[in-house]
Amino acid sequence: MKKNAVMEAEWIRCLRNRPDSQLIGDDAAILPSIASQRLVAVDMLMDGIHFLLDKTPPELIGRKALAVNLSDMAAMAGVPSEVLIALALPKNGIAKTGRLELAERLLAGMTPLLEKFELQIVGGDTNTWDGKLVLSITILGHSTARGTLCRNGGKPGDRLFVTGELGGSILGKHLTFEPRVQEALRLHENGGIHAAMDISDGLALDLHRLTTESHLGATLFSQQIPIANEAFVLAQKSGKTALEHALSDGEDFELLLAFDPNDAVYLREKQPLQASFGVTLYEVGILDTQPGLRLQWPNGRIETLAPQGFLHD
Amino acid sequence: MKKNAVMEAEWIRCLRNRPDSQLIGDDAAILPSIASQRLVAVDMLMDGIHFLLDKTPPELIGRKALAVNLSDMAAMAGVPSEVLIALALPKNGIAKTGRLELAERLLAGMTPLLEKFELQIVGGDTNTWDGKLVLSITILGHSTARGTLCRNGGKPGDRLFVTGELGGSILGKHLTFEPRVQEALRLHENGGIHAAMDISDGLALDLHRLTTESHLGATLFSQQIPIANEAFVLAQKSGKTALEHALSDGEDFELLLAFDPNDAVYLREKQPLQASFGVTLYEVGILDTQPGLRLQWPNGRIETLAPQGFLHD
Repeated sequence: MKKNAVMEAEWIRCLRNRPDSQLIGDDAAILPSIASQRLVAVDMLMDGIHFLLDKTPPELIGRKALAVNLSDMAAMAGVPSEVLIALALPKNGIAKTGRLELAERLLAGMTPLLEKFELQIVGGDTNTWDGKLVLSITILGHSTARGTLCRNGGKPGDRLFVTGELGGSILGKHLTFEPRVQEALRLHENGGIHAAMDISDGLALDLHRLTTESHLGATLFSQQIPIANEAFVLAQKSGKTALEHALSDGEDFELLLAFDPNDAVYLREKQPLQASFGVTLYEVGILDTQPGLRLQWPNGRIETLAPQGFLHD
Repeated sequence: MKKNAVMEAEWIRCLRNRPDSQLIGDDAAILPSIASQRLVAVDMLMDGIHFLLDKTPPELIGRKALAVNLSDMAAMAGVPSEVLIALALPKNGIAKTGRLELAERLLAGMTPLLEKFELQIVGGDTNTWDGKLVLSITILGHSTARGTLCRNGGKPGDRLFVTGELGGSILGKHLTFEPRVQEALRLHENGGIHAAMDISDGLALDLHRLTTESHLGATLFSQQIPIANEAFVLAQKSGKTALEHALSDGEDFELLLAFDPNDAVYLREKQPLQASFGVTLYEVGILDTQPGLRLQWPNGRIETLAPQGFLHD
């Protein structure tokens, strides 16, 4: 019932020697005082569910674990600042040096994002066990003077935008996506966003969550959904259409944004994200007062869209 | 690669209906603004390492997962205030209703501590997988006007105290211990504590950590170590002495405190924790300038004490 304390000691030494580490060897971390609102989120990733350790370089696994947390901050238009990293490292078939190397490679994969967003590692917990790899990252951040974005602020008539192509992320993007932290901050500074979230479980399901929180419904325009090439690849074998993949595949980690219609005009014409970050904003639908989700086809036909797929009526 | 989102939705509804929940359905939680220092810690508990799911009521597992985090706050003399709960629920052999019931029982076990310390659940992440149960809890808190306690403040001559009997916690106390949050706050208010931590990996190893952070050594007095009855029970079979169990067993979660010698006099005579909480303070040793740990026997003989046990010289 005892932690592998020696393993942990080596790992903590390794962590404490990093320039981005503020580990002080205490039982809890003291966070810097800030005037703005503190934000916090946690995401847990497990081998076999969110990644496959035997098929994926640990660097990409570590990167993903941090990136999904950064995406949560992006969804709130928060500035990420600190992380805590809890690990359950697998013992089976891996020697002690192998486990330390695994932990180091996971961390190496996080490093570019730690540096890009100037994050500090302020705490963690490292364990070994006879189960599979688990990473649980807690991220802390803060709001800007513009305040935070939430899911419940959508208004009828708001135009819905996404920050990238959707579907088929399992073919690679789920490991390599760019969390839209700076994009969210930039757009929020320009104003006009009423509600936001990141697309982690598929556009339809996540839009369902946003409309539920906003006590509204939404209509998506089938022709305007940006479908990733990978969705077409999957569709060749899956028995689903590429559009269905774009609507229901998870882990795209693009932003879903509800914009005031007046600002939507500006976004359509100016594409500020394309100028700043090379990211295209796609207008995919509209919030309306009728509960539920609908999909409108080019011929005008409107179908009910279930949170997790189609429901032909 | 997709989360069991429906499972999560039910669980989130369950969580959001609790009076101690501030889940707002967003990607990150907004924390209340406070004037004092923010503290944060994380602990991950895994089936087979920190508990045995097939032999332990889930309520006790949930309780422990929260209690070890509360103990981290106690070690810093922090006031705990919010938690985030990340779960990996086992799929094997457990139907969906069974998993929801497991999650509910874990939470039911946390409830008395959530209420006692007036904690708010502000976030979490719930997943199912074919692995064993994992709980990762992040706890947030804040310092009082007295500031935080750290491991690195020990001074030569400080008297070392512990808040309870040690050893043999595996026989039950590791699941049922009382985190010493209020005791730490009460003692810190009285003043005189130079350094503190909780004993999670055994007195010897944790004292080693405290002395290392304080750039000191320490001498423990063998006769003054409070040995739990359970340590004697274990000693009948383990081949170790009860004292060895008290020095090296983990998960007692008592506080280890380095007191100014002037305050130690007061503590010996007044036992303020006994009056307030029925908890006895035991004086177990002294910080000194000689690096390393030593154990002094009643006959005056002094032995080197390795962080994880005895090293006879």
